[in-house]
Amino acid sequence: MRSIIWKDNRLLLLDQRLLPHQEVWVEIHNHMQAADAIENMIVRGAPAIAIVGAYGLLLAQRNGVSRSEASAILLNSRPTAVNLEWALNRLSHIPDAELEEAVLRIHKEDLQINLDLAQHGAPLLKGGVLTICNTGALATSGHGTALGMIRTAHSNGQNIHVYALETRPYLQGARLTAFECQKEGIPCTLITDGMAGALLASGRVTAAVAGCDRVALNGDTANKIGTYSLAVLCRHHHIPLYIAMPTTTLDRSCPNGTHIPIEERSPVEIRSVQGHPIAPDDIDVWNPSFDVTPAQLIEAWVTELGIWRLPFPQS
Amino acid sequence: MRSIIWKDNRLLLLDQRLLPHQEVWVEIHNHMQAADAIENMIVRGAPAIAIVGAYGLLLAQRNGVSRSEASAILLNSRPTAVNLEWALNRLSHIPDAELEEAVLRIHKEDLQINLDLAQHGAPLLKGGVLTICNTGALATSGHGTALGMIRTAHSNGQNIHVYALETRPYLQGARLTAFECQKEGIPCTLITDGMAGALLASGRVTAAVAGCDRVALNGDTANKIGTYSLAVLCRHHHIPLYIAMPTTTLDRSCPNGTHIPIEERSPVEIRSVQGHPIAPDDIDVWNPSFDVTPAQLIEAWVTELGIWRLPFPQS
Repeated sequence: MRSIIWKDNRLLLLDQRLLPHQEVWVEIHNHMQAADAIENMIVRGAPAIAIVGAYGLLLAQRNGVSRSEASAILLNSRPTAVNLEWALNRLSHIPDAELEEAVLRIHKEDLQINLDLAQHGAPLLKGGVLTICNTGALATSGHGTALGMIRTAHSNGQNIHVYALETRPYLQGARLTAFECQKEGIPCTLITDGMAGALLASGRVTAAVAGCDRVALNGDTANKIGTYSLAVLCRHHHIPLYIAMPTTTLDRSCPNGTHIPIEERSPVEIRSVQGHPIAPDDIDVWNPSFDVTPAQLIEAWVTELGIWRLPFPQS
Repeated sequence: MRSIIWKDNRLLLLDQRLLPHQEVWVEIHNHMQAADAIENMIVRGAPAIAIVGAYGLLLAQRNGVSRSEASAILLNSRPTAVNLEWALNRLSHIPDAELEEAVLRIHKEDLQINLDLAQHGAPLLKGGVLTICNTGALATSGHGTALGMIRTAHSNGQNIHVYALETRPYLQGARLTAFECQKEGIPCTLITDGMAGALLASGRVTAAVAGCDRVALNGDTANKIGTYSLAVLCRHHHIPLYIAMPTTTLDRSCPNGTHIPIEERSPVEIRSVQGHPIAPDDIDVWNPSFDVTPAQLIEAWVTELGIWRLPFPQS
């Protein structure tokens, strides 16, 4: 399963806003469209938006736009995930003639990172596994991070049963994780976010796994809103929470979670579901897209280099 | 604000499934329609369904249906809330000639219970108050239980700001609590259920309040799914959770939470939002409508007789 395709000098994105009921591909011709696709969540997931950002730079080059101008616009599209910044920084010093190769390498490397991370992490899982948001093939170049661990554990015959939190407001769990699990034949039960506590108390779950959008040097971890609630609930039930972290998501310039910028998105996402209004039209809302989980609530960070605990290895 | 009206020997119910965007009243002519209105959530909220159950018995009498037959059908409509059982039991020994008066008394008493409960509980609240589901005028004869405490605290000028959990799957927070607060001019911010942890960590909230559907003698409390998650999160943040409990919701025959029947509702409620599909059509779901919060996570139970802590006073 792939959601990002580079073909004949065009970038094709599977419009994740319309899944699971429609599979529509969007063509991206320039860096402005790439930034727009990130901001409006045609593509989402920290690794995936880094890849699309990289292609955005390449499209800018093709269109004769300066790399610094395109980079600034792309960087502004979403503030919390550090992977986008990482990809743009990595590309900033590449000679023009080598840019395409460098961008393709970022795309290709991401898949290998996922596979390696999943290989390290899969042995941590057995039976019921609770997860939040979507961290699968749709959030990455393919395979996935936290859902990649689950995918590999399932292939290994570890008797995995996924419990997917629907993950309001954007419903990545209901729309994307449930969809990926179903396509792959991984047993999956969908629950609402408020059911996490009751599920953990029921004894059906042995571990929780989540992705991350930016991890501070002290281990504080920004991820999809609801991850912090999940972490507290896991601790209360003595169930480990593992964070799947490609090392590109570790922000070594960020000492702790208080320095992570948290994006707040439109009130419309709370007042409605997929365009269907569910609340008084002008009710006040709070809509942070991410929250920060303090390091001490996290059992371990699973990276492509192995399982990390604190303090993180030096770069 | 009222959602249950008895007028000219007809029962009128405000269809809560259509709020806040449509205000449609449904006429109930017999006990079957009353049971159906409870089961299909035209009316919901433990105190409100007790009142509708009582009127269901009265309508059965008018239609020449035996009280025991009607009572059995009404009792089956929803299993978790004990108030319905309480009302039907209270009416079971009333002579036919006094039934109407007894039913009207249940309706009227509920409002006084709410007002007394709110009077006792309001002093516990100031500033930001987090609440789940809807426990307001729409869940009762008027005023409300947990939201009744908030309403009274607001009238008293206690600088109340409500944070309403949207309360998936049925969205009573988004649709009903937000609506009630807006109508009454009580400042209210709507958030998704997964945001509870981040909100509590932000320091905006000084207390949480919830209603209840059945409380065991040891204080274990069944309430809307998500209440248990909220209770764990409150404990982690040293924020008190108060349960608004009309004494009719205490089930003295139930020693602890393991004996409380938990209703599981249709998968459709999870796979869709108000008829709009949000997940793969045939994905497996788990849909318990309630969860049980262990007594030790609850700061106090606010009743019409005063603030109760464990052990509960003898009847």
